[in-house]
Amino acid sequence: MTGKIPRAKDNDYTAEMAAARRQFIKEQTGKQLHHVAQCSFDPALLPGNIEHFIGVAQVPIGLAGPLLINGEYAEGEFYVPMATTEGTLVASYNRGMKLIREAGGVTTTVSDDAMQRAPVFAFRSAREAREFGIWIEENFAEIKRRADATTRVGRLRDIEQYSASHYRFLRFNYTTGDAAGQNMVSKATKAACDWICAAYSGIEQYYLESNFATDKKSSFINQLRTRGKRVTAEATIPARLIEQIMHTNVNAIHRARQVVNLGSLMSGVNNNGNHSANGIAALFIATGQDAANVAESSAAVIHAEMTPRGDFYYSITIPSLIVATYGGGTGLPTQRECLEMLGCYGQGGVKKFAEIVAATVLCGELSLGTAVVSEEWVASHERYGRNRP
Amino acid sequence: MTGKIPRAKDNDYTAEMAAARRQFIKEQTGKQLHHVAQCSFDPALLPGNIEHFIGVAQVPIGLAGPLLINGEYAEGEFYVPMATTEGTLVASYNRGMKLIREAGGVTTTVSDDAMQRAPVFAFRSAREAREFGIWIEENFAEIKRRADATTRVGRLRDIEQYSASHYRFLRFNYTTGDAAGQNMVSKATKAACDWICAAYSGIEQYYLESNFATDKKSSFINQLRTRGKRVTAEATIPARLIEQIMHTNVNAIHRARQVVNLGSLMSGVNNNGNHSANGIAALFIATGQDAANVAESSAAVIHAEMTPRGDFYYSITIPSLIVATYGGGTGLPTQRECLEMLGCYGQGGVKKFAEIVAATVLCGELSLGTAVVSEEWVASHERYGRNRP
Amino acid sequence: MTGKIPRAKDNDYTAEMAAARRQFIKEQTGKQLHHVAQCSFDPALLPGNIEHFIGVAQVPIGLAGPLLINGEYAEGEFYVPMATTEGTLVASYNRGMKLIREAGGVTTTVSDDAMQRAPVFAFRSAREAREFGIWIEENFAEIKRRADATTRVGRLRDIEQYSASHYRFLRFNYTTGDAAGQNMVSKATKAACDWICAAYSGIEQYYLESNFATDKKSSFINQLRTRGKRVTAEATIPARLIEQIMHTNVNAIHRARQVVNLGSLMSGVNNNGNHSANGIAALFIATGQDAANVAESSAAVIHAEMTPRGDFYYSITIPSLIVATYGGGTGLPTQRECLEMLGCYGQGGVKKFAEIVAATVLCGELSLGTAVVSEEWVASHERYGRNRP
Amino acid sequence: MTGKIPRAKDNDYTAEMAAARRQFIKEQTGKQLHHVAQCSFDPALLPGNIEHFIGVAQVPIGLAGPLLINGEYAEGEFYVPMATTEGTLVASYNRGMKLIREAGGVTTTVSDDAMQRAPVFAFRSAREAREFGIWIEENFAEIKRRADATTRVGRLRDIEQYSASHYRFLRFNYTTGDAAGQNMVSKATKAACDWICAAYSGIEQYYLESNFATDKKSSFINQLRTRGKRVTAEATIPARLIEQIMHTNVNAIHRARQVVNLGSLMSGVNNNGNHSANGIAALFIATGQDAANVAESSAAVIHAEMTPRGDFYYSITIPSLIVATYGGGTGLPTQRECLEMLGCYGQGGVKKFAEIVAATVLCGELSLGTAVVSEEWVASHERYGRNRP
Repeated sequence: MTGKIPRAKDNDYTAEMAAARRQFIKEQTGKQLHHVAQCSFDPALLPGNIEHFIGVAQVPIGLAGPLLINGEYAEGEFYVPMATTEGTLVASYNRGMKLIREAGGVTTTVSDDAMQRAPVFAFRSAREAREFGIWIEENFAEIKRRADATTRVGRLRDIEQYSASHYRFLRFNYTTGDAAGQNMVSKATKAACDWICAAYSGIEQYYLESNFATDKKSSFINQLRTRGKRVTAEATIPARLIEQIMHTNVNAIHRARQVVNLGSLMSGVNNNGNHSANGIAALFIATGQDAANVAESSAAVIHAEMTPRGDFYYSITIPSLIVATYGGGTGLPTQRECLEMLGCYGQGGVKKFAEIVAATVLCGELSLGTAVVSEEWVASHERYGRNRP
Repeated sequence: MTGKIPRAKDNDYTAEMAAARRQFIKEQTGKQLHHVAQCSFDPALLPGNIEHFIGVAQVPIGLAGPLLINGEYAEGEFYVPMATTEGTLVASYNRGMKLIREAGGVTTTVSDDAMQRAPVFAFRSAREAREFGIWIEENFAEIKRRADATTRVGRLRDIEQYSASHYRFLRFNYTTGDAAGQNMVSKATKAACDWICAAYSGIEQYYLESNFATDKKSSFINQLRTRGKRVTAEATIPARLIEQIMHTNVNAIHRARQVVNLGSLMSGVNNNGNHSANGIAALFIATGQDAANVAESSAAVIHAEMTPRGDFYYSITIPSLIVATYGGGTGLPTQRECLEMLGCYGQGGVKKFAEIVAATVLCGELSLGTAVVSEEWVASHERYGRNRP
Repeated sequence: MTGKIPRAKDNDYTAEMAAARRQFIKEQTGKQLHHVAQCSFDPALLPGNIEHFIGVAQVPIGLAGPLLINGEYAEGEFYVPMATTEGTLVASYNRGMKLIREAGGVTTTVSDDAMQRAPVFAFRSAREAREFGIWIEENFAEIKRRADATTRVGRLRDIEQYSASHYRFLRFNYTTGDAAGQNMVSKATKAACDWICAAYSGIEQYYLESNFATDKKSSFINQLRTRGKRVTAEATIPARLIEQIMHTNVNAIHRARQVVNLGSLMSGVNNNGNHSANGIAALFIATGQDAANVAESSAAVIHAEMTPRGDFYYSITIPSLIVATYGGGTGLPTQRECLEMLGCYGQGGVKKFAEIVAATVLCGELSLGTAVVSEEWVASHERYGRNRP
Repeated sequence: MTGKIPRAKDNDYTAEMAAARRQFIKEQTGKQLHHVAQCSFDPALLPGNIEHFIGVAQVPIGLAGPLLINGEYAEGEFYVPMATTEGTLVASYNRGMKLIREAGGVTTTVSDDAMQRAPVFAFRSAREAREFGIWIEENFAEIKRRADATTRVGRLRDIEQYSASHYRFLRFNYTTGDAAGQNMVSKATKAACDWICAAYSGIEQYYLESNFATDKKSSFINQLRTRGKRVTAEATIPARLIEQIMHTNVNAIHRARQVVNLGSLMSGVNNNGNHSANGIAALFIATGQDAANVAESSAAVIHAEMTPRGDFYYSITIPSLIVATYGGGTGLPTQRECLEMLGCYGQGGVKKFAEIVAATVLCGELSLGTAVVSEEWVASHERYGRNRP
């Protein structure tokens, strides 16, 4: 079997062309796409979001909440739409939200905000690469002017430098408003680099990306230095709630956490928590985020403590959460509806949305984390209890 | 605002209950969900996939292909459905598929297959933990009997052991047929651990998971030891095709690869390639895979070589690709249609599907990888050309 | 200035040749080596240890102890020679040994023992590499026969396999008696590979080392899978001793440990402890170990717990401790004396010595770890106390 | 056996006290220390270097060279003293130096220079931790004033900030003249932190070190951000020399390098080269550096290229080389002699010495790296040649 996918030269974003391609699939593979064809909106909305459109994946959305957040941008109770096909996911997050609400809510903080492009420059020697680094520092103002001129929203914040061999790696850090901003920073950095290449002699070669921005990949550097939003969600759960709702106790979950930390250190995992990718992927799909960014957004750092009063302090820091409330898939019909029910669509919504994601993730961590321990706790209880008459 | 999400005690999977929850959202948030409500199938299909169902996210699907694969399971040409909201993604993968087809196709190999659960056992001392490890080896047959008894499909293959302090970490490796198998292996390992705890005295504590399986998280150990499928896609691209279709040359992209490898080593990224998460997320959403597994499936190892004849050998190894063609979201209407158009739905399809994912990913890598270089190549051409009359 | 270093064709290991080279240095650099010349033994001892011998570095040795060990091989009290030029190092370890002795001693356990060589084999494709892997498993007995035939002491234990692209990486694990064994396993693996290359067709290329053994380098794989000895040292310190001797309390040091664990996770350090390299380097130099192996031997995993009774359980696991009591520098005069005063020189001593190293290291960790906290504790006491009348 | 180590209250640094302790060892362990006792200098030199002095380890020193360096500080030919007990080490480095000299020498560059102490501060929440971070930036001048006031030589350069949970990690970066500077920066940072704690309200707790400086431990952060000196050594070896002296060819070693890079990426090693720890440890012991710093100094990044003319460009970047030419063990008799024969003792010598270390290391890498390949090359030659008549 073989054949070229039908495509309309003038306007490819029509129901007719989608149908033509589905017919082509039928001919090539024998498969009639019935449900995929059931799209509730006009394909004319889709330029900039997809090519060779044939229909839609219908991903079920479940509702979790109310989620009580004490954020700087997200304040009050939220109902969270989660698009997933994995049973119990919504129920588990919902259970965590119930616990958190009893405990007084989640406190959320966006600690940093930066989107990168990381070009690399080659020189004749390490010494020349070092000189270039000094020149970059001295010429930051002009570089910034060139970069910022290409975008209405993006602003070059600073340039980190790294070096090895005869190369200089530059990490351009931008703020990008309510967009995720990957394309924006590519364009801006390209313009800056064009100027740099013209103004500085001795550059032997340059590449616009060196895998120091690690777009759509999890990395050590982004865990340390932030990509997208760095958000922390924190909550202190009274001991009695751990017992009443989670059927375990603070001592038990605190000990378990330390063993899991040990395992995490040894396994080289990029997240010493449980399953933040679950909540993140579900929220991303529902709200039109780029689901490929689950790769880097799923990194996390958990830190828990037993308070002097015996309560349980629990926090999750997401160092590279890539989110947007404008651009990309956020404006598509179901996606926009989901952002709107969270009060996050469009300008000014992105930090609020980042806080909601982090708060949601915290609830899921507490729910699964305590479930694992409580099972163990009950089980060991039974086990050791067996010996008694 | 506050309130409890409506839920039906007897049957919650009805259009009425979905509507009731949407009405509740309207009351709580002021937002009417119009498009989310447009679902082409009966919610009665959804138990086991979602809770508190309110409707669907409609994610646009684009078509890429034909993709020519020389696999052991996937052989011939395929048309690949990609669900995404990111413009140019489908076009870029499609361009890579065109190159690959001219080059004779992608060769794909599933090198390993294992799904894990990793319990940890605590003892009074490291010495007792070591003795336990020996006992586990000696009693593997009985442990396997207990684990395998809980599942029709899963089979315990082996148990890896790791140690630190007074703990013994066990990584149970299973084959799980055409399912991803996370729940299957949890149940089996739980049964095995129950037997172990009863049969072995001296265990002070045990947890069913220690973050040594790193479910939904990227980790060093899974890159080394495999989680889900370990798949390699390889292709050798004749030099003339790199020039004709990709507008660059083998020398240039080979040099660029080495600089990117250097950057990758330094940035501590879990993938020295470009953007495999893009292709993986798009295929995962279209076909009902668990999108949270993008976290671990997005890890990859790229290795390229210039052949003695001057052609370009390129490979990507995905060490922890979590896929299924049975269970989870694979049976939902649009998702199943997409698996069926690939000839992968149901029993016996999972390795074929793994090969298709890897082959797709390779095409995207070549497309973006060469684009970055060709831009540079053209740019540097212009730059250096400027000096000439 | 320039010139060729004097060398005797027949016997270069004489006092005359050493003097001739010192004279040469004098001529070339103007520097007379007076103290370097003061060597208490005959250079005829040195073939196999050094080339172009000119004299000795005199590194001061301090004495710490008694160190009370409850090992399987090291039992009782030991006095530990530490060669260092860093002031307070010996005093600090000594202080930890005092604490440990009051607490009843250190329990030490050698959990694993393996020395590696890791060749890599290239094939036409990943599929052929996979087939080769199966063949290696099937032919392990013959491979072992070939490897073991080259050495009186070394024994091939097992071969781990890793794969990416069209390569198969093999990690040959050996036991090597009382020698560190790096040369022994190189020779054995070379013999095995020669046979493999002759017996298996389709190998395109092979290298004896692929950086999967990571000799003299710290690595994730060796932390997980052991290189040399994997030793754990453990002790439980009664709360009152922490207060009396260390001037802090269990709560304070336990909390500090958790913060340090968080820092360690984020900084990507290969050792979440304090300074094990100090004790290891000092013992290595004193006893004729290869000091370059501080690189990998300095990796460590700390795990601490507060016991139910409020005491402090502390452990350090050294996953890649490279030690010998035979061969290399262990037979040189001062080095041998130091091994002998520990009762470890020669055959049968290596595990005892490994336990002494780990026990020593534990004492240093407790000493510095509590010092850091106690300083903080006292300081914060004063700070907060200042406000009171 | 048991007993307290003899110690003199007034002056413990005498030949008598050393003898008394050796006598004590004789009584406790039965071992007479004959060679350890042979020390060519007066123990009165040793306060600040050792406690409980009993004698010296005599480590043989071999001579390598001439080593031709084109540095900024080290220029010309050097003869390098290497203290080791590992046979062939000196010979192998010497062979590399011969190659390098024929090739025109090594170019060395110190790209960065920073010594750290990394305190951590705890707050009630992530939000307060973030505010503190801003305050630190605003008060840098005063913090620097406090830190710099404690030291004649050290200068606070900048403070990096990292965050997670309710903590703020600060990495104080100092220049420290010709000393390694660990104690200097501890004292300076302590003074700065005392001021910070007095001046800023809301700090719940602070520790002077958080494992973000990773003293005597290898870490990701130090590979990225430098600790001690960041030095690059580079050389371009003409193709004919690779063939004449190294008995292999540029193609072969370049291909081998790429396979080793792949292995390094997968094994998670902190150095994608061969054995830099060998040269570093040998130079460190000879010159009175702190041998425990082999732990972090042994990290390295290798990058090689085939030049357009077919020659071999090779570089090693050592990101965390801890060296001193003043203080610590550098002033002891044999150690000082070795520094003096390199022209590096005392003030102004440290960057020169760093360049010599890096240049030496490069020679060892080339020597071993090509040996591995040439063996393979010869071997495969024979192997494949066997089939011919």
